[in-house]
Amino acid sequence: MQLSLHADYSLRVLVYLGAHPNRVVTTTEISEAYRISKHHLVRVVQTLAEHEYVQIHAGRSGGITLNREPLLIRLGEVVRIAEPNMRLVECFDRKTNTCKIAPVCALKGMLKEALDAFIASLNRYTLADILGHGGQQKLAKIFAAAG
Amino acid sequence: MQLSLHADYSLRVLVYLGAHPNRVVTTTEISEAYRISKHHLVRVVQTLAEHEYVQIHAGRSGGITLNREPLLIRLGEVVRIAEPNMRLVECFDRKTNTCKIAPVCALKGMLKEALDAFIASLNRYTLADILGHGGQQKLAKIFAAAG
Repeated sequence: MQLSLHADYSLRVLVYLGAHPNRVVTTTEISEAYRISKHHLVRVVQTLAEHEYVQIHAGRSGGITLNREPLLIRLGEVVRIAEPNMRLVECFDRKTNTCKIAPVCALKGMLKEALDAFIASLNRYTLADILGHGGQQKLAKIFAAAG
Repeated sequence: MQLSLHADYSLRVLVYLGAHPNRVVTTTEISEAYRISKHHLVRVVQTLAEHEYVQIHAGRSGGITLNREPLLIRLGEVVRIAEPNMRLVECFDRKTNTCKIAPVCALKGMLKEALDAFIASLNRYTLADILGHGGQQKLAKIFAAAG
């Protein structure tokens, strides 16, 4: 069981932006900081912009900034919008399901509950919880050292 | 976010055995009932036997049976032993992690909590909950019809 890279990178972009709150950040900078694919990051930033988590600034000195206060960025919600596939098992998607027992099997409901518990647990935290207690300074320092 | 086929098929094997409680069942029969790979099922059965969920009976009329009462088969525990990769994001595995901020990033702990909440939610149910309230009869009927 893994998060998709899309969800993983979405969280990382928000953490990076939160660690650098007072300026516009480029996708290149984020891709270099984490040493991850810029190509993939561009699509991640699009998802985050569509859902108003980040704001895209056009032009030569363009880039992205957070579009919400860290306290208003719930981590479960980020995973929910960024994870392209919440189909934990095939019967979650009626269109493509091939499991014959789906109509009478109680397991699907139990797995859905578990997925909701996963998201609810993450929703107890916001980006502010990652940045608080000196987190922001520590993150900024480690990003600077890695650069 | 998806369960691996190994965990998915493990749950399905237990459901099939639970639906046919009074006899030895073959892997071929299960693979035909769900129309899934017999090759993969053999490995799934090995995992379930190693963890004493099923008993393998050798010989010509051999096959498998449940090795525990359905009431003692907690679904979260099944997922925990059957899921080969509980590495939700790369920093869950120190050996292969490449994310520089892991030492100071609070996200990992939050994701671990969420994963625990997922398993705990599933552990509120046992195989008996799937088979109860007429579930066993309904499942047996649908398996018979699909056969």
